[in-house]
Amino acid sequence: MAPPPLQENPVGALNPLPQVLLLRHPAQFALINKPLPDHLCHLLKPWESPLPFDQFVLAHAQSARALLASGGMPVTADLIRMLPELRLVVTTSAGLNHIDLAECRRRGIAVADSGGVYSEDVADVAVGLLLDVWRRVSAADRYVRAGRWARDGDFPLGFKIGGKRVGIVGLGRIGMEVAKRLEALGCIISYNSRKERPSVSYPFYSNVRDLASNSNALVICCGLTDETLHMINKEVMLALGKDGVIVNIGRGAIIDEREMVQLLVRGELGGAGMDVFENEPNVPKELIELDNVVMTPHNSVFTPESFSDLCELVVGNLEAFFSNRPLLSPVSLE
Amino acid sequence: MAPPPLQENPVGALNPLPQVLLLRHPAQFALINKPLPDHLCHLLKPWESPLPFDQFVLAHAQSARALLASGGMPVTADLIRMLPELRLVVTTSAGLNHIDLAECRRRGIAVADSGGVYSEDVADVAVGLLLDVWRRVSAADRYVRAGRWARDGDFPLGFKIGGKRVGIVGLGRIGMEVAKRLEALGCIISYNSRKERPSVSYPFYSNVRDLASNSNALVICCGLTDETLHMINKEVMLALGKDGVIVNIGRGAIIDEREMVQLLVRGELGGAGMDVFENEPNVPKELIELDNVVMTPHNSVFTPESFSDLCELVVGNLEAFFSNRPLLSPVSLE
Repeated sequence: MAPPPLQENPVGALNPLPQVLLLRHPAQFALINKPLPDHLCHLLKPWESPLPFDQFVLAHAQSARALLASGGMPVTADLIRMLPELRLVVTTSAGLNHIDLAECRRRGIAVADSGGVYSEDVADVAVGLLLDVWRRVSAADRYVRAGRWARDGDFPLGFKIGGKRVGIVGLGRIGMEVAKRLEALGCIISYNSRKERPSVSYPFYSNVRDLASNSNALVICCGLTDETLHMINKEVMLALGKDGVIVNIGRGAIIDEREMVQLLVRGELGGAGMDVFENEPNVPKELIELDNVVMTPHNSVFTPESFSDLCELVVGNLEAFFSNRPLLSPVSLE
Repeated sequence: MAPPPLQENPVGALNPLPQVLLLRHPAQFALINKPLPDHLCHLLKPWESPLPFDQFVLAHAQSARALLASGGMPVTADLIRMLPELRLVVTTSAGLNHIDLAECRRRGIAVADSGGVYSEDVADVAVGLLLDVWRRVSAADRYVRAGRWARDGDFPLGFKIGGKRVGIVGLGRIGMEVAKRLEALGCIISYNSRKERPSVSYPFYSNVRDLASNSNALVICCGLTDETLHMINKEVMLALGKDGVIVNIGRGAIIDEREMVQLLVRGELGGAGMDVFENEPNVPKELIELDNVVMTPHNSVFTPESFSDLCELVVGNLEAFFSNRPLLSPVSLE
């Protein structure tokens, strides 16, 4: 293996650049043709090496001080243990469920996330999915494209948005942006969260089943953790009821997807708008037949604007870390 | 023809019920199984008669005092002239372009419209269409349903909503509701209208082409009149530009549809969300191939809630008229 190039590094000394292990080429940089920050650090790219991944990692185990992670590529305890010099994990994703945070905490490894760069875009898609399910936009578009308007006449009624009670599950940055948008649409907001937020006036439900009983729709905005895995179970969905709608822009496994599919097929749940699934990129085939379901391919953050912001944030976090300044978007590991 | 039944009428006298001519069974009553107001007036239903329409109308020409109109069934000067006793036209539609308002004014015939009962629902669909075009919701749903996510990988990027400049064409009740929703999504609003609204702080453009030049999207919220027919012409659409989006929830003929189709096909216009078309229920076949177009079948008012409100408003207008009280939703014919 060639030694890393010598050049002036961010702290001004003529030292080897710090080494950063990438798990894959981050999609956000690739999709907007943004160059990776080679000027700042020596990037270790296992996908360009003939070595198998584990051997590649072992070969750089003593030098990789930071790791750039993406959603879908797990940062397991095993991987972390292979990297004794690791001090920082930066992730390009909004969720953190792919990172073993407990192991990072144990090892004193700092974690930086995507901060708020995706919140508005994700909230926009959450609202778009809910609007679409209730007002049947995608289904109506299919109807028109299939030539059925001229042949079969008026399309069936949808549901009015104004006055609907929407329960937000997880009132973080994204949840707050969703709430703001839905208020402008005349919806009545309440929420469930790990704890009540004293600065927020929306009614709080400590129990997600109670929130479902009192809502026409749930919008899942929380992260996936041991506590939220399958939190939206059959009981919660039955409490939401046969006219109830679920929108999920969090992570697929927060919902018991198998149960959700059965309830939708049997008409015991009113509809669903899904950007995330349990077994991506595969979606349950039963959903493909349903007109009261809208599915997007986990692309709620897919805008050039948020990708550009994310790339800047990643570079900023690496710069800060290698210059011993505070991270721009640190994750609290308490 | 049997004489109308005698019963106690709204003003308490035992007189024949006033006669109201319907052009067709109003869809709003039919779709929510709401009974027509037979208790209030004698309803003349040409579709139940063996007589051709014109003969039916002539047979009731001396008795029909009010007419219940629906969008798509024109109330022409010829029809109005056949009805010398006509004093009121009530329409179930948000638009008035199917009624010869000049002839009504000449004859002193009052007109009642749908008031504000549809405004929120129409605005919701306008915002849903714009969100859908920019964030590609329907196209993404098609991608997932076709199994392409697993096969072809990530879906292309959409466009961020926040920070986009949206020009509202026609800042009436519906336009104001659209503006409110888009502000919550972080859009920057300006508008064109017949005249500047002093109570509104959004920038006003007296010329729709200038509005287009300064906007990322136009949302058409005005009514169809002689002045607005093909107001959105090639020049306006070229000013909007190849990344510009048009949403139309007004009337199809406000846009020069043939030009719009050509600009979309050639990539000289960025996208379109259309609830209305020039030749409904037919849509230009070129649009069916385009992923940057979302089409709904003129159903932006199709919710049980707004139909129920509309039915109450129609009955209320007839009651008011036959009791010599002011109409609930009079149209100014000045």
